Amino acid sequence: MINFSINKNLFLQALNTTKRAISHKNAIPILSTVKIDVTNEGITLIGSNGQISIENFISIKNENAGLLVTSSGSILLEATFFINVVSSLPDITLDFKEIDQKQIVLTSGKSEITLKGKDADQYPRIQEISASNPLVLETSVLKNIINETAFAASTQESRPILTGVHFVLTENKNLKTVATDSHRMSQKQIILEKNGDNFDVVIPSRSLREFSAVFTDDIETVEIYFTNNQLLFRSENISFYTRLLEGNYPDTDRLIPTDFNNIITFDTNNLRYAMERARLLSNATQNGTVKLEIINGVVSAHVNSPEVGRVNEEIDTESISGQDLTISFNPTYLIDSLKAIDSEKVTISFISAVRPFTLVPNDDTENFIQLITPVRTN
Amino acid sequence: MINFSINKNLFLQALNTTKRAISHKNAIPILSTVKIDVTNEGITLIGSNGQISIENFISIKNENAGLLVTSSGSILLEATFFINVVSSLPDITLDFKEIDQKQIVLTSGKSEITLKGKDADQYPRIQEISASNPLVLETSVLKNIINETAFAASTQESRPILTGVHFVLTENKNLKTVATDSHRMSQKQIILEKNGDNFDVVIPSRSLREFSAVFTDDIETVEIYFTNNQLLFRSENISFYTRLLEGNYPDTDRLIPTDFNNIITFDTNNLRYAMERARLLSNATQNGTVKLEIINGVVSAHVNSPEVGRVNEEIDTESISGQDLTISFNPTYLIDSLKAIDSEKVTISFISAVRPFTLVPNDDTENFIQLITPVRTN
Repeated sequence: MINFSINKNLFLQALNTTKRAISHKNAIPILSTVKIDVTNEGITLIGSNGQISIENFISIKNENAGLLVTSSGSILLEATFFINVVSSLPDITLDFKEIDQKQIVLTSGKSEITLKGKDADQYPRIQEISASNPLVLETSVLKNIINETAFAASTQESRPILTGVHFVLTENKNLKTVATDSHRMSQKQIILEKNGDNFDVVIPSRSLREFSAVFTDDIETVEIYFTNNQLLFRSENISFYTRLLEGNYPDTDRLIPTDFNNIITFDTNNLRYAMERARLLSNATQNGTVKLEIINGVVSAHVNSPEVGRVNEEIDTESISGQDLTISFNPTYLIDSLKAIDSEKVTISFISAVRPFTLVPNDDTENFIQLITPVRTN
Repeated sequence: MINFSINKNLFLQALNTTKRAISHKNAIPILSTVKIDVTNEGITLIGSNGQISIENFISIKNENAGLLVTSSGSILLEATFFINVVSSLPDITLDFKEIDQKQIVLTSGKSEITLKGKDADQYPRIQEISASNPLVLETSVLKNIINETAFAASTQESRPILTGVHFVLTENKNLKTVATDSHRMSQKQIILEKNGDNFDVVIPSRSLREFSAVFTDDIETVEIYFTNNQLLFRSENISFYTRLLEGNYPDTDRLIPTDFNNIITFDTNNLRYAMERARLLSNATQNGTVKLEIINGVVSAHVNSPEVGRVNEEIDTESISGQDLTISFNPTYLIDSLKAIDSEKVTISFISAVRPFTLVPNDDTENFIQLITPVRTN
């Protein structure tokens, strides 16, 4: 029966990381528990919601953990409640001891708390991925890619494949990632430093956001393993499994236009704040759009809500070319796009009032492109 | 028609203070607006939810306001929306100009936003209180009193009078404040530095919490004016009106016991954290109580939830007198009480397992007393 002592704060941190895969109200009740596996090498905390699974290992060699294992074993504990109890313990150290009938006793300072657990055999098996030839990426690079694309994925289940981000590796080094909800699209390309096996997968955008939360900045690199329907992100102590989306991702290359009539460079934040003002009013209009007018080289934004009021605003440009144009679109799409751009300047290129326009950051004009579809208002 | 310019940040701060009296979903739609009264002396922002009303004055003499009034008048604007719009403006200064048909134009930088307002005549009149002989209190003193008592008021409307805090001034200088929800009670007494007219009022605890949020720490003193059914807290720029509760407040003096069998002094935080641990488990029990055992001078806390588990904990004492006792109560009441106590040490005095026990902070044993009623568990 399990018996170990550990530093409370480190244990709590690992529990909270694992909990990101655990939902309190899961249709499968056993998935609201955290599985605690104790061996002579350390403790593994396991959580899963059926879509993503996290295994978090605390080694006896981790000096910050102060982990001392006297006896090994496995048990399930209701995750939220267990975490609340651990976080309330008075002392810096806690003793975790399994007693009869799947009960555990936590002792810390003068406090002694007994909790009822469940048999670890009830927990579903997390699919093992045979570890061979992983793709290795810097965590910060992968998190940037996610930040630049995942927001453009669909949140509607009507076309499930669009709720994911398309990751494609070709020529063993060209990684292309694309997300689209059919109104807007974001595509980022990078060239890998180390070659890898080619792949073509669609990763749920929700899993990618959880990945970004779980893999903190102190984890420098991440290994990525694939199977048919699962993917594993792995660092020294964390294994993060996610299901992949099944189906064919639409061909997005053909959507990207190349010939433009108007090319305008803006200050990224300046344009974003103007769109945020416009959105306050456009939310109260029937079609929710802002109208951008380009007249004699001057760009202005307009919203007219018969009930609430109107916005008229001239927007400074850094450079501008092309003829007059009036185009309407949902300002939220443009705000989301601009938020994903780190560059101080952004260049937007238009074809006409009814064709998608593109955004590229001025500091990376080749590899990062976004598309937004306008709304016909007449 | 109104015309003024003002510093955006100061205007926004004043709007947000006023908004504390404005509820977005008021049964009376006009109360979701903020009233803006502009005179040659300055701007008054007025908000009300029918229970409390706030008038916030920005003087042309306030140097931080940079207020320049060119033309006076009054208008109503939907509060939440107007505040969002003001906060989105690009420049540090904004111009506010009324045009035809109760419309206003906000200009800031290159942004021009037109909003539809309403006729100020539609706004209900806030009862004026004839200003004579106010009670003057230090804001920090009044906020401390509120912090020490208001939490104990009832949140149930079954006995409306108990949702308030009873403020009584006798002998022109003895101020007694009491709140009780019939399960616990908190009473604070102070002696005023300046004499005032005697009064006996019941102030809604919700109004008092809003008062504490509105009267920031930079406001040193507050004047208090009374009428039959209203009370006004006033500082140089803010008038905060609240309705009073009607009816007779129960006689609470007779509830306070004087003879005790067990007197124990605890470290306040130590006891509080032990109760917070106990509550985690007691929430999962039928009667939600913790059992305190005093045996041979040792105090321990116990909760036993057949479904979840149990807590057993010895609690350190600073001093202890009296015989053995076992008493059960809702740990939330004790946690709330301990949170209201600033003192490092707290003394709890018991009569028996079925009589209320008292808490007094060790640094103010005379003027601040709390009462908690135990729960009979057998």
